[in-house]
Order: sequence, then C-alpha cells, then structure tokens
Amino acid sequence: MKSLLTSMAALLFAGVATVALAADPTPAEVREFALDIFRPLPSTVPAVKDNPITPAKISLGKALFFDPRMSASGVFSCYSCHNLTTGGDDNLETSIGHGWQKGPRNAPTVFNAVFNTAQFWDGRADDLKAQAKGPVQAGVEMANTPDNVVATLKSMPQYIEWFEAAFPGEDDPVTFDNFAMAIEAFEATLITPAPFDSFLNGDDAALSEEALAGLNLFMDKGCASCHNGINVGGEGYYPFGLVEKPGADVLPENDMGRFAVTETADDSYVFRAGPLRNIALTAPYFHSGKVWDLKQAVEIMAVSQLGEEVTDDEANKIVAFLDSLTGRAPEVTLPILPAETDSTPRPSAQVVQ
Amino acid sequence: MKSLLTSMAALLFAGVATVALAADPTPAEVREFALDIFRPLPSTVPAVKDNPITPAKISLGKALFFDPRMSASGVFSCYSCHNLTTGGDDNLETSIGHGWQKGPRNAPTVFNAVFNTAQFWDGRADDLKAQAKGPVQAGVEMANTPDNVVATLKSMPQYIEWFEAAFPGEDDPVTFDNFAMAIEAFEATLITPAPFDSFLNGDDAALSEEALAGLNLFMDKGCASCHNGINVGGEGYYPFGLVEKPGADVLPENDMGRFAVTETADDSYVFRAGPLRNIALTAPYFHSGKVWDLKQAVEIMAVSQLGEEVTDDEANKIVAFLDSLTGRAPEVTLPILPAETDSTPRPSAQVVQ
Repeated sequence: MKSLLTSMAALLFAGVATVALAADPTPAEVREFALDIFRPLPSTVPAVKDNPITPAKISLGKALFFDPRMSASGVFSCYSCHNLTTGGDDNLETSIGHGWQKGPRNAPTVFNAVFNTAQFWDGRADDLKAQAKGPVQAGVEMANTPDNVVATLKSMPQYIEWFEAAFPGEDDPVTFDNFAMAIEAFEATLITPAPFDSFLNGDDAALSEEALAGLNLFMDKGCASCHNGINVGGEGYYPFGLVEKPGADVLPENDMGRFAVTETADDSYVFRAGPLRNIALTAPYFHSGKVWDLKQAVEIMAVSQLGEEVTDDEANKIVAFLDSLTGRAPEVTLPILPAETDSTPRPSAQVVQ
Repeated sequence: MKSLLTSMAALLFAGVATVALAADPTPAEVREFALDIFRPLPSTVPAVKDNPITPAKISLGKALFFDPRMSASGVFSCYSCHNLTTGGDDNLETSIGHGWQKGPRNAPTVFNAVFNTAQFWDGRADDLKAQAKGPVQAGVEMANTPDNVVATLKSMPQYIEWFEAAFPGEDDPVTFDNFAMAIEAFEATLITPAPFDSFLNGDDAALSEEALAGLNLFMDKGCASCHNGINVGGEGYYPFGLVEKPGADVLPENDMGRFAVTETADDSYVFRAGPLRNIALTAPYFHSGKVWDLKQAVEIMAVSQLGEEVTDDEANKIVAFLDSLTGRAPEVTLPILPAETDSTPRPSAQVVQ
C-alpha cells in the first residue's frame, strides 16, 4: 500500500509530466503520457497472490457468490450488493442489510476489484479473500458467523464435492478460509474491458474527441495523481478534502475513514482513491453515496482535492472520458445451487442488536 | 379455474382409474395410467394467452425480472424471491420484503408457473401477466407504484428502446401492462424438464424402481386427484384439511385462503393445489412455509387430505417419485441493465405503514 508521501510524490510527478504535453495533442501523444500513468486491463484472468486460480475454484466461487444461504436470514448473497447486472454494485446510497439496517458506506463495484491495491473504502482488507469474509459477518450486512457458514456448506453434499474439487488434497476443504479463496477466484474473472483499454492498446478511434480532451484534462489538472494505475484509482490513500473539505452532507463528520484502521492522526478522513472503471454505472458517488450526478462529483473533486473550479466545458469533457471507462460486463450464467438438506441451518431473520 | 365440484369429480375418477392397475405393474402399465392424469412438459416455450412471445419480449422481460430498481427501495427484484439458482423460490418460510416485513405466504417457484391454471396460493391472478403486477405493488414486498415503475423505465433510454422493440407499433409502449406482459414472456421460458417427463415420454429407465413405486402409490392413494396435469398440481382448488384439518402451526387460522378472493363460505381454507415440480428444491412447504421436510409434508397431506396414514416405506417411495420431478433448470445468462439517469426516481427505503 502506498503511503501518503508516495502519493504526494505521484501527484508532483503527474504535474510535471503533463506540463510537457502539447496544447492540442494527437491521440498518440496523449497515449504516450497516459501509458506512464495508467495500464490497460489484461485480456485474461490475472494471477492472484496466494490463491492459484482454477476452473473448479472459479465455479465454486460463483456458486458461493450467488448463494443467499450464506447470510443468516437467507435473504442476502454477495450478489445482492454487488449486483452484476447494474455495474457490480447496488446503486444505493449505502446498502440495506440484515434487518433493514443501513450500511455505513457506499458499496463499491466488484468489477475489476482484483486490481485494487486493497479493499474497502479504508483499505482494511489486503485483498479480495480478506474482503470476502467481512460482509458475511457484518451485523448490518449478512449477519452470519464463520461456523454457521461452514455448517451450512457441509450440510449439502454437492458443496462438499465442489470444495474437494477446488481444494484437492486437503483433509478438510470446507473451511471459511477456502470459502473466501473461492469467492476471490470467481471475482478475479469479473473484468470489464472498456474503450479506454482499446485506446491504451493503440486504437486512436476508441475515444471520441471529447473523451480524448477529457483524458488530457484528467491528467493535466492532476486528477490522475490519485486516480491512476490499472483501475484509474484504487491504488493509494488520500484525504478527502486535500485542499478544501467538502460539506458534511458529502463527507459526514463521524466517518473518519482510514483513521479507524491505522489510528494515526494523519489518516483522518483519508480514503482509498475510488477506482473509476465503470463509474458511470455506479452512482451514487463517494463513500457517503450522497452525490448522484457524475458531473457534480467531478466538480466537487476538483474543488476539494485540487483547489480549483473546472468550467462546465471541462467537466463535460472529463465526464466523457469517464464514460470511456464503462466496460463490457462479463457474461455470467447463473449457477444452479445445491438444495438444502435436513441438517442445513434454518434462516433466521431476527436482528441481534 | 376448476370448481370444487369438478375437483371432487376428478378425485373420484382418479380413484376408479387406479383400481384397475395391477398389483406389481410394469413401467409401461404405470405410464398408461399416468398419461391419463399427467402431461409431460413441452420441449419448447408454450404459447401464452393474449401475449405473443417474441425474442425481444423475452429479453426485455429478463431485464425487468432482474432489475431491483423495480422496487421502491432498489433492493428487491422479481429474482429476489424467485431465485433461479435455488429452485425458483427463496427457501424462506415466507418472504422478507420492504422494510424487513414478512410476507403472508410462502413464495411459490416461478419455474413452470406458466402452466398453472391461475397464480398465487389463492389463484387470485388469472395468469403470470396479472401476477407480475402484484408483488411490485405489495407494501410488504416491493412497495412500488405503477407510476413510479413507468417513470423509472422511461428515465432510461435503453429501456424505452427495448419496449419499442418488444411492442412494435405501439404509440406509448412503456406501460405497466407491457411491463407485466414482458415479464410473463420471460417466465414462460423457465421450464425444467425432469426425469418424470422422460418417463412419460417413453423412457422406462428414467425412474428408479422406488420412484416408479412412488408414482404408483401417488396415483393409487389419490394424491393425483388434486396434484395432476402438467405441473402435478396448480390446476384446481381444494380445502387444506379436506378430511382432517392440520394444526394451526401448519394451517394458520387467520389465512382463509381463497375465501378472501370469492367471499364464499365453501372457499374457507381453500387453496390451489401446490404444483409439485421441483418440490425437492423448494422447502419449506405449504402456504405457511412451516414444514421443512418433504417426507413430513407427504405424511401431513396423507392425513389431512386423504384421511389415511402412509407407512414409512410408502412415504419414502412417494418422496422418491417427487424427487423425479426435479428438473434441469434453464441456463440463464444475467442481463446487463441500463444505467440510471438524472431523471431516474431515487430509491426510497422508507417504510410507509
């Protein structure tokens, strides 16, 4: 994970780099600069640290991702808040979970999440296998326990077979750790190549003139100093309100972000820079989910993070660039899940406060 | 819809017919009797009354079926309670809906529902296009209004195009009626051919010896007098507790079933006979959802509807037959839904009581 200092250095670097770009650059010139800052998505499923990806593991992970019986109530699955039909998130301010409780932060998209440096708005999970264990246990989300998840899985012979196939040679493969590893394997397949990738890969026509101008502005203004890398964000931590704190409607005072993870004063109101792929599909915006309009979000960012107002024309161009990050969603065929048995723990809709 | 009198006649008929069956019949003899009572699933999507099925309509209906923005809260779609990964229902006693309210009756499977004579446990909707309008508006389910559904759909240009393609030549195709028609078209494709169909179609080996004996018992005991036709049920209305009323735990006193539809004393505690296809996947059972074990459900039915106790061996055989009704779920690829726009009504999680 990058420190704030590294991030500030990146900001300076980006500033320097874009100074050299001509006033009305060609696509090739823009690409040359862009390739120093961004990377295109790979065309295949990436390798994942400490989790060799196999077809059996992906297939099991898909089943688990869609299985509402992983929640205490039987109502919610991973898919409920990371809906693959609507950009990989739930399009709510913050998610509704167990007992109709409202979650504390906006659900991020699962698409391309494998490329984020860490997971959650505060980066408290190092990777997707760590992340996958969170919502299942969170009282306001799926409200389950690892023991009950494992008991549920072990009650269905088909799941035991699938775990054996996904984790061959293990004495007791049906574990909460392996549950999380399988989900990570499936999520690693959820990659959405976009026009921006075609552009980075050499196709001049992949971006409209407006989007190209927007990309240029995005780099020139300094947006790219935080939103960079393969996911156009998701790689470093920055204070929300680096230059000017937004109002409490957008940045609620009681959520101090990464401070809760590191307990370091410098991390007050520090959040992971939002990964911007598919941003046009994943309103509302920010960890608070308080802003529904992408252009307004761009304008807020310009003032709070860069200390400058963008013109209407500039905002439109940046939004056109952001639209070019909308990718082709993976084709996902629904899994057919094993049926419950006599020993499957029954769903409990009761709320424990 | 069959009247109670017609149903009683069917019961008598079934009783007479099975008397003639030999004590240890061959598969061919069982099939001959069975074909008078049941029908195999068709191999193609059936024609639907007043709703010509087209690929464009199916495709639109699939999008609508999966779209959580059809609910007021943005949390629930048709798929939430008619989950295509778990037998077409939600495997809950009764569904959890808007504001964590508990619905009044167990959610039936959407699989093969197009073949039911009428929809809902009390048959209050004539067909799936009428049914589809119910949960969207029910305060305890999706809590939405037709106006808000139409406003939501009209706010997304892609949906307008899809409605135009599905309902060509109409001046204003984005209507709540057409919304329901499209969902019916998609649901008509959700057909699950089972070993029982192979058996009816002439494959002697499709049923195990135990399942064949179970089918024979199912006809001989009189189960098939209510559970008949293409869906092995779903065609007529019968009092729950025809011979002996089950306890209030299984048959809650405050739900008088079809009486609420017809306001006829004869219809007290009358329900549509449950369609039994995929029954092994759709626990818990009965409109109350109070019984999780299929064998126990069979035993309760024997006493309450036929006035006789089945032996343990008989119950096992009948369950083996019911297992042969578990079909091959359709392969469903997730739709990719249009993104919200500025004018899309925002989700409201507030509960109006």
